[in-house]
Amino acid sequence: MRIALCGGTGDLGEGLALRWTRDTDHETLVGSRDPEKARERAADYEATLDEHGVAASLDGFANGMATDRADVVVLCVPAYHLVDTVESIADRIDDTVLVSPAVGMGRDDAGLHYNPPSAGSVTALAAGAAPEGTSVVGAFHALAAGRLADLGTELGWDVPVVGDDADAKSRVGELADGIEGLRALDAGGLGNAAEVESLTPLLINLAANGDDLHDLGVRFR
Amino acid sequence: MRIALCGGTGDLGEGLALRWTRDTDHETLVGSRDPEKARERAADYEATLDEHGVAASLDGFANGMATDRADVVVLCVPAYHLVDTVESIADRIDDTVLVSPAVGMGRDDAGLHYNPPSAGSVTALAAGAAPEGTSVVGAFHALAAGRLADLGTELGWDVPVVGDDADAKSRVGELADGIEGLRALDAGGLGNAAEVESLTPLLINLAANGDDLHDLGVRFR
Repeated sequence: MRIALCGGTGDLGEGLALRWTRDTDHETLVGSRDPEKARERAADYEATLDEHGVAASLDGFANGMATDRADVVVLCVPAYHLVDTVESIADRIDDTVLVSPAVGMGRDDAGLHYNPPSAGSVTALAAGAAPEGTSVVGAFHALAAGRLADLGTELGWDVPVVGDDADAKSRVGELADGIEGLRALDAGGLGNAAEVESLTPLLINLAANGDDLHDLGVRFR
Repeated sequence: MRIALCGGTGDLGEGLALRWTRDTDHETLVGSRDPEKARERAADYEATLDEHGVAASLDGFANGMATDRADVVVLCVPAYHLVDTVESIADRIDDTVLVSPAVGMGRDDAGLHYNPPSAGSVTALAAGAAPEGTSVVGAFHALAAGRLADLGTELGWDVPVVGDDADAKSRVGELADGIEGLRALDAGGLGNAAEVESLTPLLINLAANGDDLHDLGVRFR
């Protein structure tokens, strides 16, 4: 499968690009608003993979060009850039599955808190911004990006996946399962996205307060 | 330590009573609005422990009487009974740590959703109902009660703990750590309780949608 990582120049994009390239046959396209930056980061990812004994070629594109070429688009952008990003690629979406991993959070003295948009969840916000009929799936929220991008570490994490299109959801679940140490779990329809997104501030709060806890993910058992 | 389980006749109370009695030296008191029911359930728990080779004596009391005798009170009641229960034991609280494991949830077509009271979290609701100066700790939200109460199963679960009184929080953390297969994790102050409580509907949604998933708990890693 061909996966475009819009905003794939950041931590989450790096981790997904490295691991999909290393662990699967999927082709990963690095997207950015700035195609030059996308090409530079793609070259960085190639170099990292090479250090880990993986010979691979990665390309960078403007987000729209990456979307054009992709079966699945992962929106690796902060929640506040999500609508802009979806709108900027909207006319390139054609039977493309959109994946939303972003979480809206706010901070106070106690810690980080889930702060969903009025749509009810960030995934619902992405669905609202996408052209009608687009399959939108929420996934990859609870991955500590730093550890994901470190190919030397094992993960052992679960990936709750939400969406109303069962085919799209199972396709994204297979993408998650393809990465060594990740396991996709079906968390139900798009209406359950808030419960999945809420996990991220909890993980960050636990890491902030715990001794020797950092870059946490989660396993359900 | 002496632990009173107010509303300890239900699933969560059963699991905590059985495991604290089996795994630790703490004395567990089964509380209920109806002292006769509390005594009956305490006898049931004794019988279950006996089947597992644990000779122990458990007593049942009205909630207020159990609180009188306890260092720590776990409010094993549904969220909608929480304020009533705290008010009914308020004049028996004296240097007692109150523990709130309840979660407010609502259901729609998609699944279960976190539905916090206007206080911001159920733990904050408990703190608001308790006499001023009472130490209130949120813990034991994410335990699948059926599996907890089945002494034949291993757990391997984490217990995020929140509270503003560090001593009370570490006391409750030690109670959690005392149960074989549970590990307490510090999730920060009371202001972070909503993020902890939100985990419960997610666990239920994952179990409802997953093949062969039920009675889920969580491990952070």
